[in-house]
Order: sequence, then structure tokens, then C-alpha cells
Amino acid sequence: MILTSKNNPLIKETATLKDKKGRKQTGLFLVEGVKMLRECLQSAFEIERVFVAEDYQEEIPVSESKIIRVSKEVFRFLSDEKTPQGVLCRVKIPQTQLSMPSAPCVVLDGVADPGNIGAIIRTANASGYKEIYLTEGCADPYSPKSVRASMSGVFFTKLYLTTRAEISTLLQGIPVIVADMDGQNVFRFTAPDKFALVIGNEANGVSEEMRLQAKYTVKIPMEQTQESLNAAVSAGILMYQLKKTVF
Amino acid sequence: MILTSKNNPLIKETATLKDKKGRKQTGLFLVEGVKMLRECLQSAFEIERVFVAEDYQEEIPVSESKIIRVSKEVFRFLSDEKTPQGVLCRVKIPQTQLSMPSAPCVVLDGVADPGNIGAIIRTANASGYKEIYLTEGCADPYSPKSVRASMSGVFFTKLYLTTRAEISTLLQGIPVIVADMDGQNVFRFTAPDKFALVIGNEANGVSEEMRLQAKYTVKIPMEQTQESLNAAVSAGILMYQLKKTVF
Repeated sequence: MILTSKNNPLIKETATLKDKKGRKQTGLFLVEGVKMLRECLQSAFEIERVFVAEDYQEEIPVSESKIIRVSKEVFRFLSDEKTPQGVLCRVKIPQTQLSMPSAPCVVLDGVADPGNIGAIIRTANASGYKEIYLTEGCADPYSPKSVRASMSGVFFTKLYLTTRAEISTLLQGIPVIVADMDGQNVFRFTAPDKFALVIGNEANGVSEEMRLQAKYTVKIPMEQTQESLNAAVSAGILMYQLKKTVF
Repeated sequence: MILTSKNNPLIKETATLKDKKGRKQTGLFLVEGVKMLRECLQSAFEIERVFVAEDYQEEIPVSESKIIRVSKEVFRFLSDEKTPQGVLCRVKIPQTQLSMPSAPCVVLDGVADPGNIGAIIRTANASGYKEIYLTEGCADPYSPKSVRASMSGVFFTKLYLTTRAEISTLLQGIPVIVADMDGQNVFRFTAPDKFALVIGNEANGVSEEMRLQAKYTVKIPMEQTQESLNAAVSAGILMYQLKKTVF
């Protein structure tokens, strides 16, 4: 059977997952493409359903009972891609219980661009930061754009959607390293074994509240003609630099 | 006088600068926003004209003879921003003559995403790589999206739009460092004083042609659950890591 109507309740509900409100109501998010599906299967995440476009030919490595065939038009309606590939999963958002970081971790303090959030999760996972705390004002890491930019990093990191106040309590005793242009050169700095790296908002940097927690402030040195770096690029440089000895 | 018609020949021509063809025909590109205009004025670039939306109030720091007031509607037509700020410049694309790099340089080998191109230019300028060679297959660094992502880096770096064949000739005698997952750990590698760092395409990596030039191949080590990094992030990490001793 092929679902052909956008008014089908399941299709309508699935379309709401593009927005934060729909994700909150259902506890589900969207994962698009067969590559991402395969990565998801390697993780602890649970795939609830898979929509497959009628013209998609290849095999889908999930139980047939979870697969729903839909018309090309319905697929385009659900997809967030310019050129949809024909595979879209509904995946359960994990219920994480806020807890103290067990190793170096990252705090995203109002990072607002979903592409930056995703790229930072991708780099965090690559460089071995498995715990990421997101304060109020951050873009939702479960948005289609952020999930895509994370390139499966979202499946292998623990994401805590929290507040600055909660983080302050949680990080007591853990050295906080704030990224800011007033800081010391990160390339001449040796980080402690355990720390929390705070990355600020694209336009305004780290919040006053998190700055007050800083034990260290580090900067990436720059030539005078460039005022700042892209948030995901600077987070990537800092994450690797502070922790590179593990490799 | 306020231009109110999209059919005005100057407005029509300016709209073509959003596309590569229009930029090629006119030798001009678009720079949007007063902050970017100010940065441009600090550089050697020549601003040819400035379009200002009728409701834009603040002073524009260029000669009145270059300013053209346009209606809000016409401005929106020319703008590439979701929320246009009201200032848009036509700027001359510099005529660069292909020459050997004078210092460490970057080669973008088929980097296809305009946002990545811009972010890499931004980081290159920040980290002191002033010469960037772009091969065939790269996105145009003078597109509105790339210029915006470069955050004025485009004004302070030399961009050479060239080919792999030309670069191969040019780089003779200069150690080529290719970024690839088969390489040695970049954090245990010491780069020579002068080199060319080659960054490959987002999906396919560095081309065979450039690989054959490699004196060194370096990688950014990653956890197993992450296959790759965003191209702009990995370029940023490599640029700083290879050259950080200058700071």
C-alpha cells in the first residue's frame, strides 16, 4: 500500500516534526537519508517508523513492519532536502537525565544557528567530547538542519537541553574554559584533564552568566583584519586543541 | 531621487550579480550590509556604487555621488538576505595575476559549498594565509553567500580562480600538504615554513591530480563513530595547526 494523501493523520503528524513544537509533543525527530539511517542503527537510538518514497529501489535495513511507502509527492512534503533521496525516519528523542560530565565536555551557550549546532556536534563526537550541554537560546539540535549537519554525531553524543542556572550547579568543581577574544592564546595553554569548554552565541559571544563561571579564558589568535571566526570553526579548533593529547 | 522600478537598467544589471554569469560579464560582485561596507573601505577593493533602501536612516561613509536610493521593494529584489538591512554595494572584482605563493597558502580543490568557501576564506585570513587558490569545481567565492560567510575575509586575501593544471606548475618546489584520512596525525606533524595546504571536496575529498603532488598527507584523528568533519571546520583546524607557531 502506498500513502498518497497529505491529509493522512500519520503524514500530518510527521510533518509537524519539522518544527520544535511537534518534536516536543511527540518526542520524535526526523532523520533523512539511508546513510543516516544506517548510522542510526549503529547507535542506541530507536527508529520508530521509516517512510520510503514509492520510486526508491534499494533495500532498507529495517523490519518491514516499520516501513511505510508513500507517493513521491507525499515524500517531498515530509522531506527537508532540496533533492529528497526517498528515505525518512521517525526516531525517538532519548530521555537524558541531567548529570555531571564524566570527562571534558562542551557547553553551547546560546549558539543560535542550527547548522553551527550540527557541525559542532559532529566535531565534538569526532574529537571525543561525548557530553554536550545546550543552554536556553540554542537552536534545537533535533531540527532537520542540525541533524543533517551533525552527520550522525547526534546519535553518538549525549545532548542535554538545559539552562545556564542548571549548568552552573552541575559544573561545580569542574574548571570552566570560556572562549573569548580577551583570553590567553589557546595554543600556549594546557588544559586540565577534565573541563567544560563554553562556546558562545555567534553575534554576542559567551553570556555574562557563564563568563562568571570561567576559571580560564582562551582565545584563538587572529590577524587584525579578521574580527572573528565562524562559531563551528572556532569550536572545532578549540575542541581539538584543548584535548588533542588523547590521540 | 528614489529608484522604484525593477525594470530600471541599472537595477536589472545589479540583480544579475547574484549569479556567476552576471559577475563575470560585469567584473563586479555584491557586498551587503554597512559592516561589510566599512570593512571593504579598509581594503584595497573599489566600491563602484551603493544602493540604499529609502527607509535606511544612518549615514553611509561613501561619497554621495556613489549612492543610489531605492524603494524598499527594489532593495528586497536586489538583496540576498532574509531580512535586508538596507545597504548593498557593487564592488569591483580584483584582477589578480596568477603567481607563486609567497608564504604558506591554501588550495581549495573542488570545495563546492559557498558557505564553506566563505568560512574557509574567513579562517584563512584570520590565521594568516593570504593566498588562496581555487580549482575548477569550487563554488564562486564572489557569490553573495560566500562573501557573507567570509565576513570580510574576501577583502584581505588574494583569491586565484585557477585550475589544477596551472596550480601544479605553480607549486613546483613548494611542499604540498594534502588533507586526507589516510595521512599522518597532523598534531604530531611539523610543517615546513612554506607549503601549500590542499583541502578537498566535501563528498569526494582531494582529487587524484592534487594527491599526486602531495609531499605530505595529514589527517585530523577522529573517533570511530564519526567518519568526517565539515570541510570548513577541518580546514580551520589544519590551517591553525600547521602554522600556529607564527602567533
